[in-house]
Amino acid sequence: MEVSNPDPDQSAISQFQRVRGQTLALTEGLTAEDMVVQSMADASPMKWHLAHTSWFYEHFILQRYADDYQLFNSDYQYLFNSYYDAVGPRHARPERGLLTRPPLSDILAYRQHIDQQMANVLNQQQPEVTELLTLGLHHEMQHQELMLTDILHLLSANPLAPALQHQAVAVSDEQVTAEKMLSHEGGLVQIGASEQGFSYDCEKPRHQFYLQPFKLANRPVTNSEWLQFINDGGYQNPLLWLSDGWHCCQQHQWQAPLYWRQQDGGWFSFSLNGLQTVNPDAPVCHISYYEADAYARWAGKRLPREQEWEVFAAKQPQNLQKANFLEHHIWQPTACTPQTGFDKLFGDVWEWTQSPYTGYPGFTAAQGELAEYNGKFMANQFVLRGGSCASPRQQLRSSYRNFFHPHQRWQFSGVRLAEDQ
Amino acid sequence: MEVSNPDPDQSAISQFQRVRGQTLALTEGLTAEDMVVQSMADASPMKWHLAHTSWFYEHFILQRYADDYQLFNSDYQYLFNSYYDAVGPRHARPERGLLTRPPLSDILAYRQHIDQQMANVLNQQQPEVTELLTLGLHHEMQHQELMLTDILHLLSANPLAPALQHQAVAVSDEQVTAEKMLSHEGGLVQIGASEQGFSYDCEKPRHQFYLQPFKLANRPVTNSEWLQFINDGGYQNPLLWLSDGWHCCQQHQWQAPLYWRQQDGGWFSFSLNGLQTVNPDAPVCHISYYEADAYARWAGKRLPREQEWEVFAAKQPQNLQKANFLEHHIWQPTACTPQTGFDKLFGDVWEWTQSPYTGYPGFTAAQGELAEYNGKFMANQFVLRGGSCASPRQQLRSSYRNFFHPHQRWQFSGVRLAEDQ
Amino acid sequence: MEVSNPDPDQSAISQFQRVRGQTLALTEGLTAEDMVVQSMADASPMKWHLAHTSWFYEHFILQRYADDYQLFNSDYQYLFNSYYDAVGPRHARPERGLLTRPPLSDILAYRQHIDQQMANVLNQQQPEVTELLTLGLHHEMQHQELMLTDILHLLSANPLAPALQHQAVAVSDEQVTAEKMLSHEGGLVQIGASEQGFSYDCEKPRHQFYLQPFKLANRPVTNSEWLQFINDGGYQNPLLWLSDGWHCCQQHQWQAPLYWRQQDGGWFSFSLNGLQTVNPDAPVCHISYYEADAYARWAGKRLPREQEWEVFAAKQPQNLQKANFLEHHIWQPTACTPQTGFDKLFGDVWEWTQSPYTGYPGFTAAQGELAEYNGKFMANQFVLRGGSCASPRQQLRSSYRNFFHPHQRWQFSGVRLAEDQ
Amino acid sequence: MEVSNPDPDQSAISQFQRVRGQTLALTEGLTAEDMVVQSMADASPMKWHLAHTSWFYEHFILQRYADDYQLFNSDYQYLFNSYYDAVGPRHARPERGLLTRPPLSDILAYRQHIDQQMANVLNQQQPEVTELLTLGLHHEMQHQELMLTDILHLLSANPLAPALQHQAVAVSDEQVTAEKMLSHEGGLVQIGASEQGFSYDCEKPRHQFYLQPFKLANRPVTNSEWLQFINDGGYQNPLLWLSDGWHCCQQHQWQAPLYWRQQDGGWFSFSLNGLQTVNPDAPVCHISYYEADAYARWAGKRLPREQEWEVFAAKQPQNLQKANFLEHHIWQPTACTPQTGFDKLFGDVWEWTQSPYTGYPGFTAAQGELAEYNGKFMANQFVLRGGSCASPRQQLRSSYRNFFHPHQRWQFSGVRLAEDQ
Repeated sequence: MEVSNPDPDQSAISQFQRVRGQTLALTEGLTAEDMVVQSMADASPMKWHLAHTSWFYEHFILQRYADDYQLFNSDYQYLFNSYYDAVGPRHARPERGLLTRPPLSDILAYRQHIDQQMANVLNQQQPEVTELLTLGLHHEMQHQELMLTDILHLLSANPLAPALQHQAVAVSDEQVTAEKMLSHEGGLVQIGASEQGFSYDCEKPRHQFYLQPFKLANRPVTNSEWLQFINDGGYQNPLLWLSDGWHCCQQHQWQAPLYWRQQDGGWFSFSLNGLQTVNPDAPVCHISYYEADAYARWAGKRLPREQEWEVFAAKQPQNLQKANFLEHHIWQPTACTPQTGFDKLFGDVWEWTQSPYTGYPGFTAAQGELAEYNGKFMANQFVLRGGSCASPRQQLRSSYRNFFHPHQRWQFSGVRLAEDQ
Repeated sequence: MEVSNPDPDQSAISQFQRVRGQTLALTEGLTAEDMVVQSMADASPMKWHLAHTSWFYEHFILQRYADDYQLFNSDYQYLFNSYYDAVGPRHARPERGLLTRPPLSDILAYRQHIDQQMANVLNQQQPEVTELLTLGLHHEMQHQELMLTDILHLLSANPLAPALQHQAVAVSDEQVTAEKMLSHEGGLVQIGASEQGFSYDCEKPRHQFYLQPFKLANRPVTNSEWLQFINDGGYQNPLLWLSDGWHCCQQHQWQAPLYWRQQDGGWFSFSLNGLQTVNPDAPVCHISYYEADAYARWAGKRLPREQEWEVFAAKQPQNLQKANFLEHHIWQPTACTPQTGFDKLFGDVWEWTQSPYTGYPGFTAAQGELAEYNGKFMANQFVLRGGSCASPRQQLRSSYRNFFHPHQRWQFSGVRLAEDQ
Repeated sequence: MEVSNPDPDQSAISQFQRVRGQTLALTEGLTAEDMVVQSMADASPMKWHLAHTSWFYEHFILQRYADDYQLFNSDYQYLFNSYYDAVGPRHARPERGLLTRPPLSDILAYRQHIDQQMANVLNQQQPEVTELLTLGLHHEMQHQELMLTDILHLLSANPLAPALQHQAVAVSDEQVTAEKMLSHEGGLVQIGASEQGFSYDCEKPRHQFYLQPFKLANRPVTNSEWLQFINDGGYQNPLLWLSDGWHCCQQHQWQAPLYWRQQDGGWFSFSLNGLQTVNPDAPVCHISYYEADAYARWAGKRLPREQEWEVFAAKQPQNLQKANFLEHHIWQPTACTPQTGFDKLFGDVWEWTQSPYTGYPGFTAAQGELAEYNGKFMANQFVLRGGSCASPRQQLRSSYRNFFHPHQRWQFSGVRLAEDQ
Repeated sequence: MEVSNPDPDQSAISQFQRVRGQTLALTEGLTAEDMVVQSMADASPMKWHLAHTSWFYEHFILQRYADDYQLFNSDYQYLFNSYYDAVGPRHARPERGLLTRPPLSDILAYRQHIDQQMANVLNQQQPEVTELLTLGLHHEMQHQELMLTDILHLLSANPLAPALQHQAVAVSDEQVTAEKMLSHEGGLVQIGASEQGFSYDCEKPRHQFYLQPFKLANRPVTNSEWLQFINDGGYQNPLLWLSDGWHCCQQHQWQAPLYWRQQDGGWFSFSLNGLQTVNPDAPVCHISYYEADAYARWAGKRLPREQEWEVFAAKQPQNLQKANFLEHHIWQPTACTPQTGFDKLFGDVWEWTQSPYTGYPGFTAAQGELAEYNGKFMANQFVLRGGSCASPRQQLRSSYRNFFHPHQRWQFSGVRLAEDQ
């Protein structure tokens, strides 16, 4: 049974306030300077995230459903539209970091304004609003994760290696779970989200899919396993790599996961908790699809299909409950611990699947301007499943499909192996 | 019933000689100058194709199975290896056009040498050789098509617009086939090549696949329909395009298919038969996946899945028999003609499917050096089906999977529409 | 007689304090966000300028001459070295904008620390210190101008077009000076700075130079004249341009000076005082060398040599006194006003000369780490003369040589014409 | 006393025939394939050179002065115009290598046609024609050198390292000339070409120039000296390099002159005579301005100014007579030999000067379409003097100014040192 989220037991307003508050809480410890800079075209400034998530409610809800709504600032329509061509022209993505104005204080005032206006509208309890609100909250939760990945990327570029927080990560005494391959007999299965509860258009329709028998690993690949791949010359052997992947590896001179640094004879990893020695028992993180795929080949296995992942995950509600999500404030993967079934299907690291991100049979994009939400990205990206230590818990479910280009590494992305039976 | 090709009724030697001769025949009318130049990194010089297809037999057959085989020229191992990392280092792909030496005459002598040596080996009728020969011939047929696409690209870059041949293309009096959507009930179907007859590793294993009901168009999209898309602003409307596709369209300022030119108030198209007015009834050709996808959205339909295409094609053996293939020497698509069932499932234009090129369930790459043949390209490419006017007939079958990146346009690529039922 | 500056009548400490204070004053009205962002690789963040100019004293004076000097923060050696390879490794220039830490408050504390320490050292009145101090102050004055050019570039990239200040620019009732060409008889002249007073190594040695007779315009080219060039198709005619310049013009699609915008049927210009209608009587500003050169050819004249400019300027001390410099707080060029001799030789806009920036005969770079100050830039740049509305007054003298690459436009650069006699 | 060339004692027709024949002779041993390929944007195919040098006479002479002249082929106006914007649109330079048509045989016929038509016109002995002929011949001689540099670049890119010719280069028994710095007292000197004899517009007007006393080396820097620079870490030390030069050196990972290769523990150099061990006594060749400048700094000296070179060269007519030029068919620099005065001022290698290529005082470009010949390149290039082993002898004189961008290395460029006195 899936968690339908946000929590249906909460009122719309309290859900709204909780999500909004969680967004702001992520900026704790950050200066206005930290929040304006854009460290690469794929990432956005924290301030932009704060504004864009507010714009989303303003544009899709307040302008339609609030009485006599006055725009907080008409320029924001242009500045904080992300990629909705149907909405109108917009500020170019790679130039979001040039917006030193409006200042952070204006954006915080904008948030307050939106919060108040939304409270008024939500009090009227219009069903269309509730539906759009749910979408807006899920949208904002997606941006919460992006805020953490984007600020991590920015801080990693600073020679001072500043930490966002100083969360002690307990190192377990227990041994790490041994890798075990768990079997599934295959056959016709149901894939995708049902019509009940919230889900994105790309998770639907729920449909039949025929699976061959397969096995899935009980846990993600760990850092210590990844070190064996490195030490075995994995980053130097073209036979392990996809053709596009090998070009990418050579062009960027990859030698290790994104935030790893070799110094003083050892491997360190930069995280939101600062620079640390690599934890051998934690899932490897910040790897590209190309690296995940090369590792799987090296290991004599393969990446899972998204449907293989989903059929197992749908049967593991407890896995979702106890996962290491954003709310735990650890913000980095933690060690795999001995257990009998699956470990970390949810949380810790997104798991690359070998499934390109495409529309399910019968897929139809949402109507109107929101048609652009998911459908227009259905090329050149691969599906990741399960959420990470930076994902808000209520965002996740077993049908949730995340997607990124195969060269991208700044997300909390890892890998779980599969094989044919 | 699939055509198992090359023709099993022919002896190995006569098959070999036929394919080799067909390759050389493609260079008729070309000068040594035409055959040395590389017009872009994706394309290769004709001379390189002539040498590489010979190298393939030398490396994979003669060096292993010919008695006391002496290399024709040891440098050729380096110069004419295409992309086999397991074989060893090789000349960089974008620099193939710098190889003015060895001259064409040496490469022709190389071909003769290989032909003679292969004749000797084939006379011994070793089963392993026969299997590798079949692969070699299919490999060479793939390069025959590439030779036509690559020389077309080179000639198109010449302001003189030189034609490779002057084949009169009959313009039919009959009206073009009206578009009709033909239904399939879906369900569990068998996909992929059987173990009998030749097929590539990526077409296997034959496996069950669950299809939802769908419809497939009886013929490809025509030039006249494409003109409506152009005239309706299709190339200017971002809402019709995938996000990556729109960037690509803007970056390259696409306004029409690759070889179309607007002059004197009309549309012309450059072809291997020279510059011609666009034939309204012929299938549109030389379009990217992004354009095909945008067109389908504009038309209110979608691209087919490769399995949808295959289940229909497997039932149309007559379609394969009468198709416009390389052997017809027309080398451009011809008009769709009225008929009751499917038109041009095979030949004329490759048809983009919405299926990313990935491994089938249970896919295992061929062993040894040939493992690189198909498997390492399984990212960022889409499957095309059916062959084109530049495909050798014996190369095709309903399970054949061609694949290219979604931005590429220099292949004979077109589009057939599908829709959900 | 040249102005030897900084003012020799002031004590070292009061000079130091005045310059330091002037730097900070330039940040008035700016937020910490404005001061951290880098808008292009050529520009630096304001915060970086504040830190680097302090580092200069720390590294070249305090570390050598202060008793028991403790570095404020040893990381700053790496972070705020600009380009001195001899000093050691440094943070990459295009990544200066990623330094959200140390925060602005730390940099302000750093400045205070340096100010106090310098006061101690300056009290000791060591001659070597005084010499280095003078260099340090001139260095800081150069950065004052760069701060204004860099913040202008950043603000110009903001769709909100924010002004740094709101200085009313008086529009004169008087007519603009008519262009007049003033003659010089040529012959052997003295060029370069004497050994008295401060000057950079690249201004020396003072040497003989043989000049052919020539004429120099009495004032810079104005915006109204530039509009004629635009309206006459100057930006579309390759015959007016240098070959490299035409490529640059086409690549960047130049149509007008850098900050000009055509809207509502008229021309506007973005400045530190916000968006304004183009003032027809003010010198044209923010043009590249290529544009200046094309304009001169269009006008049937040529750009001056730096020596031609210098011999006239050396005789115009009053021109230096009354020029529109940074201290006037106008920060944009003002209209040319009727007068009998030269107008605006100094101030308002830097004037491109046709002289490539090279070493004078007998040039020897300064010794030690400071050898890199000027000498290593002697390729691919052209000399500009006279200073601008963003130049501190004491920085300028008739022998002063500024230099930039011919494609660069973000400096306050304009043009004065010359011709052979 | 300057050599006024081409040889005034020859009739116009015999001069014309000699130069035309010399051009064709350079293609000996080359196939049509060698002559069609373009190895980089800076270089042109041999076939293009053959056609362009013919087009020059057709456009500037035959179309104006031949009676009822019929164009050989009107397409050639577009295809073989190099860079004359005033003449009209033209084929893009980086795409010259795509012109497999017209074939070489057509271009050879074109040359014959031009030769015949020119013979007719030259028989009429019109003075305007004679003047344009002289320009055309000098133009063609410039292209003779470019043909050798461009084919060298192409052949060097071939892994087979094919030689254009196999000219045995005598290794002298005599010791190489010791480096000696020869003095000049400076003062007002005459620079530039006189009005008598042929010279380009950029060599004029002859004018006075004031020189400080200086010294010039008696011979160019040799390979053995360059090896010391390499072994002393010259390519790794940023303090030796100009700022732009260091970026270039790092970006392209320069470790040695362009065609040097380290193999089997020694240094080899690819030349038109094939791959050879580096001759320690020959002048270093195929270096950029940046490398020449870094070497001079390393050696404690500097590059000469072009005027310094010219005043010495003008007094060394014997140096011009006995130099190693194209006609010697050696086509690579030969060893410096002991002598009392200057060695190799002319021939062997072009010598980089520190003088940016700019217009002389009073420079006016040639009139009409030929105004583009030299003037539009006067930015970002440095002057080289003296000619090389690939320069036709009659092309050279002491006032001749060659010019290239400071990063370019495929010309026969070397370095001679200078210093202040």
